[in-house]
Amino acid sequence: MPDHVQYGPAFGFEIKARLPDSRARLGRLSTPHGAIETPAFIFCGTKATVKGVTPAQLCEADTQIILSNTYHLMIQPGADLVASMGGLHRFMDWDGPMLTDSGGFQIFSMGHGSVADEIKGRRQQTRDQTLLKVTEEGATFRSYLDGSKLFLSPEGSIDIQRKLGADLIVQLDECTPFHADRAYTARSMRMSHRWGDRCIERFVQGEDGPMAGKQALYGIVQGGVHPDLREESTAYTRDRPFFGTAIGGSLGSHKDQMYEVVAMCAPHIHPDRPVHLLGIGGIVDVFAGVELGIDTFDCVSPTRIARHGWALAAGVPANRLNLRNARFRQDPGPLEDGCDCYTCRRFSRAYVHHLLKADELLGAQLVSIHNIAVMNRLMREIREGLAAGDLASVKARWL
Amino acid sequence: MPDHVQYGPAFGFEIKARLPDSRARLGRLSTPHGAIETPAFIFCGTKATVKGVTPAQLCEADTQIILSNTYHLMIQPGADLVASMGGLHRFMDWDGPMLTDSGGFQIFSMGHGSVADEIKGRRQQTRDQTLLKVTEEGATFRSYLDGSKLFLSPEGSIDIQRKLGADLIVQLDECTPFHADRAYTARSMRMSHRWGDRCIERFVQGEDGPMAGKQALYGIVQGGVHPDLREESTAYTRDRPFFGTAIGGSLGSHKDQMYEVVAMCAPHIHPDRPVHLLGIGGIVDVFAGVELGIDTFDCVSPTRIARHGWALAAGVPANRLNLRNARFRQDPGPLEDGCDCYTCRRFSRAYVHHLLKADELLGAQLVSIHNIAVMNRLMREIREGLAAGDLASVKARWL
Repeated sequence: MPDHVQYGPAFGFEIKARLPDSRARLGRLSTPHGAIETPAFIFCGTKATVKGVTPAQLCEADTQIILSNTYHLMIQPGADLVASMGGLHRFMDWDGPMLTDSGGFQIFSMGHGSVADEIKGRRQQTRDQTLLKVTEEGATFRSYLDGSKLFLSPEGSIDIQRKLGADLIVQLDECTPFHADRAYTARSMRMSHRWGDRCIERFVQGEDGPMAGKQALYGIVQGGVHPDLREESTAYTRDRPFFGTAIGGSLGSHKDQMYEVVAMCAPHIHPDRPVHLLGIGGIVDVFAGVELGIDTFDCVSPTRIARHGWALAAGVPANRLNLRNARFRQDPGPLEDGCDCYTCRRFSRAYVHHLLKADELLGAQLVSIHNIAVMNRLMREIREGLAAGDLASVKARWL
Repeated sequence: MPDHVQYGPAFGFEIKARLPDSRARLGRLSTPHGAIETPAFIFCGTKATVKGVTPAQLCEADTQIILSNTYHLMIQPGADLVASMGGLHRFMDWDGPMLTDSGGFQIFSMGHGSVADEIKGRRQQTRDQTLLKVTEEGATFRSYLDGSKLFLSPEGSIDIQRKLGADLIVQLDECTPFHADRAYTARSMRMSHRWGDRCIERFVQGEDGPMAGKQALYGIVQGGVHPDLREESTAYTRDRPFFGTAIGGSLGSHKDQMYEVVAMCAPHIHPDRPVHLLGIGGIVDVFAGVELGIDTFDCVSPTRIARHGWALAAGVPANRLNLRNARFRQDPGPLEDGCDCYTCRRFSRAYVHHLLKADELLGAQLVSIHNIAVMNRLMREIREGLAAGDLASVKARWL
């Protein structure tokens, strides 16, 4: 088990400014596919596509970084196929920074019920049992596609992520559900730590291979809602040669508890490494996360709610408008006043309302483009606020 | 009934070259929103959107002109709403030439069974009865949206098309089905002629209004598969002050009969006016149509088959490839060799195959972009062939 990993020369994380009396920080995360200014939002391209949006449209909306999901891609089209096509960047025509997750989140959330279900107070009851077995060796689960039995180990996750070729990759962990008891959460967390060590070992072996120097590994903090477990897990990631730190696992049953969990981790996180908060991307949560020292966020919600007709906007209740609402039927204004995205420059709320009512594909596309642009603008304004030493007025404008 | 209509100064049709021993011609059709080089393909934006493609993407694929359907738009979102939003061009952000049809085709094809059904040998049996009554006054039919009873007269069709504001608009006609007998077809055709006269009168009244000089009217040739009726109907359109001539109605039960019907009309069509063939857009049909003197075509098929994963291509059987086919799973090539569309420049068949298998929206989008680019390239190569006096080698390359 190496206590130091030399990441490739293209990787780096520079903290450019800090907000006084806060953990918030302005940074720059460098990768072989370019740098991202942080805090940044990572858009979900689950199956090697950000749903409904071309890479050219992502760029036009000022997107810095996207992610894809190992779980989905290992099943369809398969990591070997992606590798044979030159890797994920080339396969999906995304030439910027990219992250893949370990595959664990979907395996376990589909087995246990998702973090989102928990935060929203839902419990899994009727969902198919797709997680078959978790052992020290790894997880056995059923394919979402055809129900076939699959197995993923920490080493397998790294091998797949090597083939996919994203810049930032993530250790395999067990994502414990909120309703797991403390004893289970503690046992699971420690197994995740052992899995993390196995991931580091596999990663280091790969540094002799074709992807040498082209990828960097994040560790994941587990520990549920228990302060001592979160401290133990954060210390684990800090003491291992990970490039970055991701906060994962159960973040509690409601937003305030989620903030508490992040706050439990914050003091113990390696101070010089980029910090990612997994699966969180509500605008109010982004502000809370930034103030707790989070550098990057990801969430499916900006594009998922877009497909249901919800446009993100600053300074409106819950930061979103339901464009299917009849009050927009004859509204000539842009989706959001002052937004300079393609959708807002060229189309009215009335037109998008019409597209959504008519179930036209273009409706989901145009709202997705807008929501992506809004999240990128949000992050830019947060960065500008951090640079100016005033996050409060940015927050006041948005919330 | 005026025997002359002065169309606005922005309108014109110039025949720049003719192919010897053929009716094929190279032309330029001018409208207030720019000129289109003919022969040209008109893409269907049924509900004020070419499905799955942004106007920016249409432009990038070299699109010259699109159409929208009066029938759909009069029901949702309604012509008054479109007018209040500044007209269809502004509503859907299409600043180029545009055509609207009269609404008749859908009313009658949904009532009688479509031309496509006929050409493909299908007969309507179980479809809902949406056409309630056809009288001299107009057509009574049910809304596709909520089943409410609606009425469309020739004057109403012109009024609606004035509100929508397309450059090229079309008279209302009854689109008689193939299985109508000769007597019905003849009676219906003569009623369509009277409707054409009423459309001209209404159109001329509108030349005192806000859309004066901004629109031009096409007459429609009816007459089913009967040579004498087609001659009579073509002569009708020739002798009336229409800007252009559209060949409509039943074009027979198979492709050869469709060519025969167009050939029946060709000698009698006003020689100086642009000629549109309604609803036909197969690549082999486009070549046949061009040789019979057709200047513009429209069809939903390029974008409809795209959504089912069929990519158009030159020189392959039936001019299309089923990208869902497993043989493309690991194919690193572009959708079509030598195509310079966005999709082919940036993505592989393997990637698009993956998107289609995964039911990702982007799959339909990327194939739509390609198919639009292919149709535009087809028309450009046809024009180049006509300019060079050699259509045969273009045809040999494509078919």
